[in-house]
Amino acid sequence: MYRTNNCGELNISNVGSKVTLAGWVLRSRDLGGMTFIDLRDRYGITQVTFNMDEEAALCQKAMELGREFVIRVSGTVVERSSKNPKMPTGDIEIKASELDILNPSLVPPFTIEDSTDGGDDIRMKYRYLDLRRNPVKEKIMLRHRMAQETRKYLDGNGFIEVETPVLIKSTPEGARDFVVPSRMNPGEFYALPQSPQTFKQLLMVSGLDKYFQIVKCFRDEDLRADRQPEFTQIDCEMSFVEREDILSTFEGLVKHLFTTVKGIDIPVLERMSYTEAMEKYGNDKPDLRFGMLINNLAPVAKGKGFKVFDDAESILAIVVPGSSEYTRKELDALTEWVKRPQIGMTGLIYLKCNSDGSLKSSVDKFFSPEDLAAWKELVSANDGDLVLVLAGSKNKTVKAMSELRLEMGDRLGLRNPNEYRCCWVLDFPLLEKDEVSGRWHAMHHPFTSANPDDANLLTTDPGKVRANAYDMVINGVEVGGGSIRIHDKQLQKKMFELLGFSDDEAQAQFGFLMNAFEYGAPPHGGIAFGFDRLCSLFGGTETIRDFIAFPKNNAGRDVMIDSPSPLTVEQLKELNISVNK
Amino acid sequence: MYRTNNCGELNISNVGSKVTLAGWVLRSRDLGGMTFIDLRDRYGITQVTFNMDEEAALCQKAMELGREFVIRVSGTVVERSSKNPKMPTGDIEIKASELDILNPSLVPPFTIEDSTDGGDDIRMKYRYLDLRRNPVKEKIMLRHRMAQETRKYLDGNGFIEVETPVLIKSTPEGARDFVVPSRMNPGEFYALPQSPQTFKQLLMVSGLDKYFQIVKCFRDEDLRADRQPEFTQIDCEMSFVEREDILSTFEGLVKHLFTTVKGIDIPVLERMSYTEAMEKYGNDKPDLRFGMLINNLAPVAKGKGFKVFDDAESILAIVVPGSSEYTRKELDALTEWVKRPQIGMTGLIYLKCNSDGSLKSSVDKFFSPEDLAAWKELVSANDGDLVLVLAGSKNKTVKAMSELRLEMGDRLGLRNPNEYRCCWVLDFPLLEKDEVSGRWHAMHHPFTSANPDDANLLTTDPGKVRANAYDMVINGVEVGGGSIRIHDKQLQKKMFELLGFSDDEAQAQFGFLMNAFEYGAPPHGGIAFGFDRLCSLFGGTETIRDFIAFPKNNAGRDVMIDSPSPLTVEQLKELNISVNK
Repeated sequence: MYRTNNCGELNISNVGSKVTLAGWVLRSRDLGGMTFIDLRDRYGITQVTFNMDEEAALCQKAMELGREFVIRVSGTVVERSSKNPKMPTGDIEIKASELDILNPSLVPPFTIEDSTDGGDDIRMKYRYLDLRRNPVKEKIMLRHRMAQETRKYLDGNGFIEVETPVLIKSTPEGARDFVVPSRMNPGEFYALPQSPQTFKQLLMVSGLDKYFQIVKCFRDEDLRADRQPEFTQIDCEMSFVEREDILSTFEGLVKHLFTTVKGIDIPVLERMSYTEAMEKYGNDKPDLRFGMLINNLAPVAKGKGFKVFDDAESILAIVVPGSSEYTRKELDALTEWVKRPQIGMTGLIYLKCNSDGSLKSSVDKFFSPEDLAAWKELVSANDGDLVLVLAGSKNKTVKAMSELRLEMGDRLGLRNPNEYRCCWVLDFPLLEKDEVSGRWHAMHHPFTSANPDDANLLTTDPGKVRANAYDMVINGVEVGGGSIRIHDKQLQKKMFELLGFSDDEAQAQFGFLMNAFEYGAPPHGGIAFGFDRLCSLFGGTETIRDFIAFPKNNAGRDVMIDSPSPLTVEQLKELNISVNK
Repeated sequence: MYRTNNCGELNISNVGSKVTLAGWVLRSRDLGGMTFIDLRDRYGITQVTFNMDEEAALCQKAMELGREFVIRVSGTVVERSSKNPKMPTGDIEIKASELDILNPSLVPPFTIEDSTDGGDDIRMKYRYLDLRRNPVKEKIMLRHRMAQETRKYLDGNGFIEVETPVLIKSTPEGARDFVVPSRMNPGEFYALPQSPQTFKQLLMVSGLDKYFQIVKCFRDEDLRADRQPEFTQIDCEMSFVEREDILSTFEGLVKHLFTTVKGIDIPVLERMSYTEAMEKYGNDKPDLRFGMLINNLAPVAKGKGFKVFDDAESILAIVVPGSSEYTRKELDALTEWVKRPQIGMTGLIYLKCNSDGSLKSSVDKFFSPEDLAAWKELVSANDGDLVLVLAGSKNKTVKAMSELRLEMGDRLGLRNPNEYRCCWVLDFPLLEKDEVSGRWHAMHHPFTSANPDDANLLTTDPGKVRANAYDMVINGVEVGGGSIRIHDKQLQKKMFELLGFSDDEAQAQFGFLMNAFEYGAPPHGGIAFGFDRLCSLFGGTETIRDFIAFPKNNAGRDVMIDSPSPLTVEQLKELNISVNK
């Protein structure tokens, strides 16, 4: 037997018990005749003491223990003379009477402490050591809790978890597939799923009514920061539902998760149309934790002879509260910030609404005090506020103003990661036009149905059609999205036509789904949540990588196991493929 | 709103309610002025009536509904005049006042009834229709229940579910890997995991203490009947454990599953050594639902001048209870059965212990009545029993006798799929010698440790070493297996040497694991259950395919989506590979 207790559970009520613990040596200290070991396991840390006077040989052995040695210790639980109220086990220590070294350890390449001296690269290579650190371990345990609670809620609401296949069929549309050569079918390949979309729709055709799955998906993209080639979705679909049914069911899911995992009761989710989100926040993923809504300044700023404004498609302003005292230097720095290539504006205009009621702008020579007062009124600025203005082409200015708003929110500390504001964004456009090819693309995916009110626009004015779709946004991050699907074969065919598929292409790639629609497909809809992202949000950090036990780096490599790697000649031959020279 | 209730929940207490149901037309009947529709959804079947006298137009519309049309019906719940006690909803019917056809259906290619006229091939092609049938749907729902209860038990016992990567590294040893070309790392490939073995061991090194995962695994094997290229495991690992800890934890898991899913309390699991299982059952997967244990007849059958026995390495006998009246014809057929190539024996010898106490054997001329009486005594046969004897080389005879025992168990109806007998098989050999190459192979896998009592035999007599391993066997089916692992780098290195790995090969394939062992690896062990197989056992059938929503056929094809399939030239080019001509 290796242990009677774990390292996190003993307290004052156990004093006098004989116990055996096993774990890792976190640190040891020799204090004149006494050796103290902090013994760590998943559950906590317990202090173990060795007394040179009473057990010289044992104490000698303890003094030789290195960091991260795996040991087993038996002894008696005693009350500490100097207690540590910060630790659950801080009232007691173990007076050791036996010590076994179960496995020694080399000196770890970085310190296994909450804040470590190890850089990213070394911690990824020794991920199994990084996972010993509390902040990393806790994220993996949070993820476990999230998954269990998700299942508990969905199971409790009649959803059936169904495993859909991982070896499926490649569909060249959309993002790139990872593919798998089939040895038994030479020259043919499976693909790994980018999502179980078509399978979950088939499960609705099969009458399963409510489906979910927490499932790995795969996308062979050029990896931007914090994108992983394999990622996890909470994937859901329901039959005989309208949009409202989906919204209330999955609002219930996030409320359940916040309550059970974070102990937070969140209010009813706000709802916002895509149009409103773009107008007020410049973004279809609005961060509602703070105001600074975007104003259209054009009505009072145009036609006053200031060429930059007069030529601009958009003139947008936000009010930064209590920031009128920004110095010239700070404003110059902010101007440089908006001129960076990532933002791409040519300049920044400001209006200081000083606390004494006076106004000071960077474009004083073009605008009279009355003009500036009209600005102040339009944007509802108060004395002491700073108004920031961007002007230029529409899309670029909207995007830049959204970024500037978020940046100012950060600078003012208005984006507290432990405060949560959730909303639904609704009424997205169904289609968007690729400006280069002139082709329509599905904004969500080609299985999304139109808002019933707009169905007749599909032929006459496709760009105006709103999708029967919804995104869930928490703190400015899209955590989930979905739609009511098309369940009619003719409509689905028409959608593929609109998206520029030939009949043959549509049939080859999605024929099985359209055929299935001919055998009694029910009305259905669903949603998928990015599980890695949702976990990172609940964990209060932005990097999803920390919430994945064994993540890959930006080149798609697992540096710990050194993968991918070349195959042997025999393997390639059996698979009937060659690597191009 | 599509429905107020589902098709399985209305009963006599709802009489008088106005309800709306949605579902599929299972069947319809016209009975002189009345049309009856059986409306089906996942939850059940509800009868809907249309009255020609009262609602002529509505009734006319109902008469035109075809099988599997998707409809919405509103009406009033009324008590049936002729009740159907076999259906939960059999006391009521819906008197329809509204009817919408939500989606019509072509005539399905096979009938959607509990027993169907559709053959395997057509049902696989239209799997989404096959899943509408109760027997298939119920298997998928059983699987869901099994997965949820597995998680509930393991979570409740402190296990953390951790997702391990799907894109890992190819290790040419063992079964073939499925591989995935990496576009970003030209000429390099990921592999899909055959199991998360090394990752779960790394999680133990990381101190996670108790891990589990219900996880897809992949094996590119030539598919025998009922093998799938992708399959699911309940994968578990624990730290600071000895064999006994694992056995009691996972005995707890199956007991929990039997109680919650089947409502059966199973007794404490029996335990049997590999040697005992082979001696008594001729099989390391003993079916304990019936006796007919194997006896070694050699002591009383050899040296009597019957050459077949005198030359045989093994002479084995089983007692088939109450079967002494087998006719000559039946015994001839049984002889042919053992002579089939799958069994491969040259003949079958019998001894009838007639109810009058007389003995009749097929080898009367070689054995005296006293000899035969000695057989009867050795095998403890009773009057009325039939003794069956096989003789030949050891391995072949043991295997054949095991098959014969199972066959006789089937014929006597002793293998009831709804009776469960579970056991642990212990003390497997650690290594087995490949008779062709003369090389040692790991019987379980190269990470399995030796039984501590046999550790010193590793160098002197490797074939004698028992593994610290265990299999769980239910009704003659291996449902799970595992071992206490090696956690010492030197020992692991020695094992790789014994298995014929060069130092370079061991380092290239498993270096990351051996390195991890140098940084404080705890003693650990684990187990993996074949989840598809476990579900099929709980479902009382032998075919795992029925328990997979979208299975592949024996050629590894998904005939529904027609996968695998060729890639486009562009895809191959991007992946930097070519298909061999």
